[in-house]
Amino acid sequence: MTFHLTALYRHPADPAAFDAHYDGVHTPLTLKLPGLESFTVSRPGPGPDGKAPDYYLVAVLGFADQETANASVGGPEGEAALADLPNFAGAGVTILSGPANVVR
Amino acid sequence: MTFHLTALYRHPADPAAFDAHYDGVHTPLTLKLPGLESFTVSRPGPGPDGKAPDYYLVAVLGFADQETANASVGGPEGEAALADLPNFAGAGVTILSGPANVVR
Repeated sequence: MTFHLTALYRHPADPAAFDAHYDGVHTPLTLKLPGLESFTVSRPGPGPDGKAPDYYLVAVLGFADQETANASVGGPEGEAALADLPNFAGAGVTILSGPANVVR
Repeated sequence: MTFHLTALYRHPADPAAFDAHYDGVHTPLTLKLPGLESFTVSRPGPGPDGKAPDYYLVAVLGFADQETANASVGGPEGEAALADLPNFAGAGVTILSGPANVVR
């Protein structure tokens, strides 16, 4: 078992500005998190029905366990990453966290 | 770049029945998908405010690229996995798919 934080970002008003900030500022801040073992970023496309997906970007951060994740997010690097959210995620972000099983 | 399918499951009426079906039936069906390179399952806990998370289970399936994912999900193994959803995911599931970057 490991521990995952999943961030689900709503569609931004200005996707180009969001992408530039996410890739250029937020990703480097995320990579500074102590104990971050895995980090994937996906950008969903339209579904089979052609509708826009519910979220614009999905980020999954992996840590060894909950204690490591809590210490990391609660430390100065985590505070810096969280403090950056209002700079680009004004449309809303849902953050989920819990134990994860790397099945494959 | 790779390609991710993210499945966000709403809270089931009967979590124990959901878990038994997900782990015992749906996970084996998922593992049969051709080209499935990675598969993680997380079960979010309450947030810092103590509220129940928006989703009960997050599954992320990784494929080499969109063509591989489409062929896999559109093939007989994919059809079997999708046909299994009504057996346990009646509370709702949101499926997102798009290009993904394994940053770490």
